[in-house]
Amino acid sequence: MDQQLAELTAKVAALQQSAGMQGTIDIEVYYFWATALMVLIHAGFLGYEMGASRAKNVLASGIKNILAFAFIVPTFFFFGWWIYLAFPGGFTPSADGDAGLPWAMAMGPNLSDNASGVFWAAFTMFAATTASIFSGAVIERIKMSGFVLLAILLGSVLWILGAAWGWHPSGWLLTDWGFHDFGCAGIVHLIAGAFCFGVLINLGPRIGKYLSDGTAVDIPPHNVPMVLVGLMLIIVGFFGFLAACVIMVKGGQWTNIYGQPMTLSAVAFNTLMAFAGGVIGAWAFTRDPFWMMSGGLAGIIASAAGIDVWYPPLGFVIGFVGGATIKTVNDGVVKVLRLDDAVGAVAVHGWSGFLGLMVVGLFATGYANPGDAPPISFMGQLVGALVCFSIGFVPGFIASYCLKVVRLLRVPDEAQLVGLDIAEVPLKAYPESDTAGAAGALQPAE
Amino acid sequence: MDQQLAELTAKVAALQQSAGMQGTIDIEVYYFWATALMVLIHAGFLGYEMGASRAKNVLASGIKNILAFAFIVPTFFFFGWWIYLAFPGGFTPSADGDAGLPWAMAMGPNLSDNASGVFWAAFTMFAATTASIFSGAVIERIKMSGFVLLAILLGSVLWILGAAWGWHPSGWLLTDWGFHDFGCAGIVHLIAGAFCFGVLINLGPRIGKYLSDGTAVDIPPHNVPMVLVGLMLIIVGFFGFLAACVIMVKGGQWTNIYGQPMTLSAVAFNTLMAFAGGVIGAWAFTRDPFWMMSGGLAGIIASAAGIDVWYPPLGFVIGFVGGATIKTVNDGVVKVLRLDDAVGAVAVHGWSGFLGLMVVGLFATGYANPGDAPPISFMGQLVGALVCFSIGFVPGFIASYCLKVVRLLRVPDEAQLVGLDIAEVPLKAYPESDTAGAAGALQPAE
Amino acid sequence: MDQQLAELTAKVAALQQSAGMQGTIDIEVYYFWATALMVLIHAGFLGYEMGASRAKNVLASGIKNILAFAFIVPTFFFFGWWIYLAFPGGFTPSADGDAGLPWAMAMGPNLSDNASGVFWAAFTMFAATTASIFSGAVIERIKMSGFVLLAILLGSVLWILGAAWGWHPSGWLLTDWGFHDFGCAGIVHLIAGAFCFGVLINLGPRIGKYLSDGTAVDIPPHNVPMVLVGLMLIIVGFFGFLAACVIMVKGGQWTNIYGQPMTLSAVAFNTLMAFAGGVIGAWAFTRDPFWMMSGGLAGIIASAAGIDVWYPPLGFVIGFVGGATIKTVNDGVVKVLRLDDAVGAVAVHGWSGFLGLMVVGLFATGYANPGDAPPISFMGQLVGALVCFSIGFVPGFIASYCLKVVRLLRVPDEAQLVGLDIAEVPLKAYPESDTAGAAGALQPAE
Repeated sequence: MDQQLAELTAKVAALQQSAGMQGTIDIEVYYFWATALMVLIHAGFLGYEMGASRAKNVLASGIKNILAFAFIVPTFFFFGWWIYLAFPGGFTPSADGDAGLPWAMAMGPNLSDNASGVFWAAFTMFAATTASIFSGAVIERIKMSGFVLLAILLGSVLWILGAAWGWHPSGWLLTDWGFHDFGCAGIVHLIAGAFCFGVLINLGPRIGKYLSDGTAVDIPPHNVPMVLVGLMLIIVGFFGFLAACVIMVKGGQWTNIYGQPMTLSAVAFNTLMAFAGGVIGAWAFTRDPFWMMSGGLAGIIASAAGIDVWYPPLGFVIGFVGGATIKTVNDGVVKVLRLDDAVGAVAVHGWSGFLGLMVVGLFATGYANPGDAPPISFMGQLVGALVCFSIGFVPGFIASYCLKVVRLLRVPDEAQLVGLDIAEVPLKAYPESDTAGAAGALQPAE
Repeated sequence: MDQQLAELTAKVAALQQSAGMQGTIDIEVYYFWATALMVLIHAGFLGYEMGASRAKNVLASGIKNILAFAFIVPTFFFFGWWIYLAFPGGFTPSADGDAGLPWAMAMGPNLSDNASGVFWAAFTMFAATTASIFSGAVIERIKMSGFVLLAILLGSVLWILGAAWGWHPSGWLLTDWGFHDFGCAGIVHLIAGAFCFGVLINLGPRIGKYLSDGTAVDIPPHNVPMVLVGLMLIIVGFFGFLAACVIMVKGGQWTNIYGQPMTLSAVAFNTLMAFAGGVIGAWAFTRDPFWMMSGGLAGIIASAAGIDVWYPPLGFVIGFVGGATIKTVNDGVVKVLRLDDAVGAVAVHGWSGFLGLMVVGLFATGYANPGDAPPISFMGQLVGALVCFSIGFVPGFIASYCLKVVRLLRVPDEAQLVGLDIAEVPLKAYPESDTAGAAGALQPAE
Repeated sequence: MDQQLAELTAKVAALQQSAGMQGTIDIEVYYFWATALMVLIHAGFLGYEMGASRAKNVLASGIKNILAFAFIVPTFFFFGWWIYLAFPGGFTPSADGDAGLPWAMAMGPNLSDNASGVFWAAFTMFAATTASIFSGAVIERIKMSGFVLLAILLGSVLWILGAAWGWHPSGWLLTDWGFHDFGCAGIVHLIAGAFCFGVLINLGPRIGKYLSDGTAVDIPPHNVPMVLVGLMLIIVGFFGFLAACVIMVKGGQWTNIYGQPMTLSAVAFNTLMAFAGGVIGAWAFTRDPFWMMSGGLAGIIASAAGIDVWYPPLGFVIGFVGGATIKTVNDGVVKVLRLDDAVGAVAVHGWSGFLGLMVVGLFATGYANPGDAPPISFMGQLVGALVCFSIGFVPGFIASYCLKVVRLLRVPDEAQLVGLDIAEVPLKAYPESDTAGAAGALQPAE
């Protein structure tokens, strides 16, 4: 019987080890697939932004979009991940950041670490998505060099500093204010939207966007079907993005980034409902397919901060409000403030992200937070929203102002008039089409 | 030794709990990824339907497609899921439906239920796919309001009632007739195809589709490459769809929806083989890339009912037959019956779905079913096919007839002639192209 | 206490069985999703190749691409998988191949085998990808029949024989030479590139590609945005491809195909870094979005052989070199050797694949291999590269020569001049466009 017991003990030990490893592998696989789906966001953004350009600028927009992705990856490797780990307390780096330094053991193939690579990859894709949000707003007149610098600033510095503060189990926005932002409505979308806002002030509008009396002229996408399919691919990728916002716990229930238990089922329910609400909300007020698909995005973003807790019909209503309001907000940005936001990024991402944070303050006030953190509150969400806005807007404004001064921000007017593709790209988008480079352009838009 | 035993007992209990939770999470993740892949079906359908339209109707087709998806989600939340749970017995709701009522504990974030959200989401995507099948057939002349009502009827009522009957472990088609439809060949595709059939009778053809002597005129897609890429995206999404047809069992072998053991490997084998067979079958008889990719779909659909059991070369042959016959069937629908099915949905989905059910009756007759259900039989499959046809055709015909009477079915001829985009959409698909809105249209199709 | 022990023993046995099954299912799911993502590679290739064609040949290119995929599936079922299992020793089939014979128990739904179907499916998608690489190089003048035969030869015979030799735990390239090619840089990409090289010699250039003095004329893609989005979809699919290169071990650490332990995290790190390096490298030297996206592919391919071991910044540098050099290599192929490689497949796949093998010889020399296999060495990698080149080039040259002799290789000049779509396809790509079939072609390219 002693022997039986010894055998059994060995079997149990083997099971424990095997189960532990299985759990580790499950986590690794989960974030790997989430990362792959987030790469699809970039296929979507690429089609979306090229479609949203005029035919004469299609490839220049494509190049910018691809470069934003490409430059985020190494910069996020060299300092972005370190920023996330080092700065949850504010502006003073903590020693926790050491694990994210590019020479750390965790930052490479390492048989005793199955987690760092996939976590880094998922965060890198968040960063690339954030940069892509910015990429769309400034098409058709920004300089490539200035754009790349701004994209790196946003994607590998600003939003990830915001994430350290408000999307981290020790971030000061959580520990001091009880801030809650499950799916990065504020941390990704509001920061990105506010950054666009700051840059657009200095960048100025495309030639022809405003008449001499200030009236805004519509500059439509040259290929709306490509825009729509691109946006639907982004929606697919959103399932990877939101999945990556959930923390898989070995042998236990999921939590959000703050450590509060939740289910992946909640994400399934609310993502679909908020998407549907956003589409229908935008349809009800615009009948415009561009705004409908943007409304689907806005719906998800507006509900993203509380996707872990919403009752799905509430997720639908929040999404509806997001979708129903973006066109109006965009009109305010474009017509009142006279900022030429080429794809409505300030409205779709900035406004919906802000909305997303505030509805948590309205409908989830009082929810307990882990440890000593105060519960969710309207004031905490408002503080978080102001921080997100500031961390995007202020550096975006200052950096673009500096780039403007050194003439790295805006292409010369002549290049803009002739089209950036002719000015910058050794290739035509549609070479079998007429000399304007348009897909069947009989009447070039300008 | 007592203490050793007590410790071991505790360890085993912990392992059991952890393994149980791990299994739960595995299931949740599996259906979540399947859902994400099914969203890709909609990116595919969107490109496919816009490409299949003429340039003057591109965006109106896109809007319809997007709205079908958006309206299915909340309606499937409010009553679709309840229908599935409540009606396996026929027309009398059972109390099992209570778990699907919108105010049920299961219908929202719930820490003790990791399953309902992802199952609901997967079924919702089945529903949205079903509605999208219909969406393509009726483009270029259906009214938006009538379309949305019909899409909801099909996607959130009819097919899911069919699923309760024939794709449910207690459905009467299984328990009374031994009906077998692993991958919803009948429940999704035949029902959707029959519904299209019923609606098309009342909707009528597009202006110009038939000459005065009744000869059918070909109205080709304005952008075939977009159609082909869209269809290939649907094929990718099909892997999510068919994966979601398999039931993951904690710590045990997979089963189909009826509880019969199977493997996911079977799905991998047969989906690829049936796709290939369908493409090659259609190529052999048409050399037409539109029908080749439709043939790939048809191949998968024709084999779908028995994907769990086919020997892969048989799956290939069944797929080949599906692909080889759809063009002929479509000619019958369009030229003989004079129903203007814009994308061949009746043939690709209705016919292939019917074929799929019947080959199970031919080649899998006698397979045992679980419990007291009779074995698979030709007659059982035929009864199931008739039920699927009826549940799609009859309500589709009646509802579209009613909509026709109240003038909500068909757009005015003038709108159709000028193009639905000009009539309904505040945006041009290709604004840099000529006034017809075509992608480089020098000779508008009409 | 005896009873307690007996109960515990039973519980432990149940846990062991359940954990074993869970592990089996995890493996099945993992390769199934990898397969689904690899299907996305084909949606990408389809868009890419159609976009890369001139408007007059769009659909013919699409048909070829679709047929390559469709014919690989059954041929890989009937003999491809058998070749892999039977030929690790060289040219003499071993009895291990029996499990891959089409009538083997493993080759179909089988409740005691959850693995064969998904492994076969993943390998089939590798094979289809390999065939698609070839598909792009030869567009716009190859005959359909000859193309299909060559695609089958490459996808279901040559590369998989190479895989048996160099990408198999018992392959002679490993056991005799210590060959290391984690992600098939040589086995898929170099073989495919070398095959293209051999075929292009016999196929000859497109009419108009070379002036009478031998100067190469640029024949640009008719739709560059479609090319770029297609390439980004291929990048997404690459995550499925590379994931499928890792072997999931029940309850243990991952290994590569050779049995060396590794992590999936390494794949996440290095795939992103190498992609980014490739894009930036190509951008630095070309500013051309076609080469930038091709550079992203080239970067992944150049690092693929050692993705399991690279320090990520090294992966970036290797990717950069790949991206930076492909245009020059392609110029050599097209301008010096006067081979009309329509998409740069020899450079992007052949050269980068060769580079990928050799950098392992440079930077990973001395890494131990499992069992009695010699360690990784420069010479071993060089031998492997020569074998990969030969196994692609020689049969490609001979087979295409034979097809040329029997006039199955090249379409008649008249068909090429008028456009393959008009000559072969009963459908126009853009029927609302002008008679040249171009997307808005006012000035047909020829």
